[in-house]
Amino acid sequence: MKEIIAEAIAKIDWNKTPYELYEPIAYTLSLGGKRLRPQLVLMGCGLFSEEVEQALPAALGIEVFHNFTLLHDDLMDKADIRRGNPTVYKKWGDNRAILSGDAMVIEAYRFISDVPENCLKHVLDLFSKMALEICEGQQFDMDFETRDDVQIDEYINMIRLKTAVLLGTSLKIGALIGGADKKKADILYEFGIDLGIAFQLQDDLLDVYGDEKTFGKAIGGDILNNKKTFMLLSALNAPWLDVVAQLREWINKKEYNNKEKIVAVTSLYDQLGIRQVCENKINEYSQRALSKLDKIDGNPEIKNQLKTLVEKLQTRAV
Amino acid sequence: MKEIIAEAIAKIDWNKTPYELYEPIAYTLSLGGKRLRPQLVLMGCGLFSEEVEQALPAALGIEVFHNFTLLHDDLMDKADIRRGNPTVYKKWGDNRAILSGDAMVIEAYRFISDVPENCLKHVLDLFSKMALEICEGQQFDMDFETRDDVQIDEYINMIRLKTAVLLGTSLKIGALIGGADKKKADILYEFGIDLGIAFQLQDDLLDVYGDEKTFGKAIGGDILNNKKTFMLLSALNAPWLDVVAQLREWINKKEYNNKEKIVAVTSLYDQLGIRQVCENKINEYSQRALSKLDKIDGNPEIKNQLKTLVEKLQTRAV
Repeated sequence: MKEIIAEAIAKIDWNKTPYELYEPIAYTLSLGGKRLRPQLVLMGCGLFSEEVEQALPAALGIEVFHNFTLLHDDLMDKADIRRGNPTVYKKWGDNRAILSGDAMVIEAYRFISDVPENCLKHVLDLFSKMALEICEGQQFDMDFETRDDVQIDEYINMIRLKTAVLLGTSLKIGALIGGADKKKADILYEFGIDLGIAFQLQDDLLDVYGDEKTFGKAIGGDILNNKKTFMLLSALNAPWLDVVAQLREWINKKEYNNKEKIVAVTSLYDQLGIRQVCENKINEYSQRALSKLDKIDGNPEIKNQLKTLVEKLQTRAV
Repeated sequence: MKEIIAEAIAKIDWNKTPYELYEPIAYTLSLGGKRLRPQLVLMGCGLFSEEVEQALPAALGIEVFHNFTLLHDDLMDKADIRRGNPTVYKKWGDNRAILSGDAMVIEAYRFISDVPENCLKHVLDLFSKMALEICEGQQFDMDFETRDDVQIDEYINMIRLKTAVLLGTSLKIGALIGGADKKKADILYEFGIDLGIAFQLQDDLLDVYGDEKTFGKAIGGDILNNKKTFMLLSALNAPWLDVVAQLREWINKKEYNNKEKIVAVTSLYDQLGIRQVCENKINEYSQRALSKLDKIDGNPEIKNQLKTLVEKLQTRAV
């Protein structure tokens, strides 16, 4: 399915006027990525229908929207590098990043408008709900930066909104296009939510314990930014007060050597067993996801692919 | 119809979480404005149907989208004041302006998704085409700032995209919801395009020759910014080379007293008869609009309201 998607994305014609508006869109989509979300749309469809390609416009709409969120998030976060390349705002400035991102939202809706007309209204409603939730998640994420009282369940809710609803909605939209009934589509959505939360927790884990080469970005970014991830929040709630006090010291330090801070905080995480705490949480959500998958009958080959996706998460191979 | 719209806008519930995301949206929509575009949606519908309120979701979608463009444009243009109040980016910073604007696009689509299902796909396609064209117009507008070779027809095309297609699409979507056939809806669209271009030329004219109190913003802003309006481009193309040379001098001056520049450039416009050139152009587009209106049969009362709208432009009473 990855090939179908790659081919379809390559075929989109961004050679439109004014060039200045469409060039950053073509650039963003050319940077690649796993194309996980559009694959989930096709898989959701393929569970219930042989005609997977009828879900292709929805898959493209989802991928264009996902790339829009990356484009505007990079601008808001002042992130300079995305997938090894300069980000749009860095390359062309704030205004072109704002405007080409805006155009991407509309382009995403144009693809979504091409889903089969018998489920257009339903798919549109799901898409808009998901799109708003992603904005809500991004706002919570920004708010958390300046808050000192973020709770673990607030963090889980934030990543549910910012990351997981997109995976759940991708699967659900695909399923509806494939002809699934509401009940099955809903279970698949919940599977996607659990998968998405596990997925983000895994990403947080790899930001500390991953291998720089396979992770694709520098290790320790979250530690340097004092990002209130599940791991940091769990560590701050640990009962070993002396270790927690050392962690707080590092958080409040204004001047430090980057590498030193990463090594020190990682070592404190090790003392608190945070890696295990996070892996347990990932397993918890993975198990939940698998038990939901069991409840769905559908093309067994695709069910197996979805199962493999979850299992890869547990072995940190994603 | 203005009352129906005001009431419907006031009823929208923005009291959602996170507050930080929805507060700027509620604020923007509370600043008022003429609500011309949603009125055009209802009028387009009312020409062909007694049930004007069936076009209300589309009218709200159009108004929310219009306000989104103002919000993001103010950020890109670094405009501090809108309708006598601080702009969103000025009040809450760039990131909240970016993100709440993004959410407004999605909210606009949510309203559009509530149009009667028998014309949903058609309305969606028109809405997305228009929305993209507005982005294209804004990109052209930004590009023109740094270009020295902008032609008058390029300027007209830019304001067609940035301003006129929204008026045309508002009318056309309303007409389709009201049951108009494609031919009539298309003529109404063209009427809206001519109206929109006349409307923007009028706005440019008032920026130089308007009364500060009724215009609602400071006079001379375009002159100070060397904005390449129809008037400036016409002046630069005038055959009185000595006057044009003086105009170029003012354009290239790096240091000047604001009031002095406004008075001097206005006086050069007077010498070149630019006010008359612009009024002639407005009349040309107004006449075109009226001749299109003649071709449409429909509720005569609403036809009359549309006619009045055009005539008001010609007498500069809008």
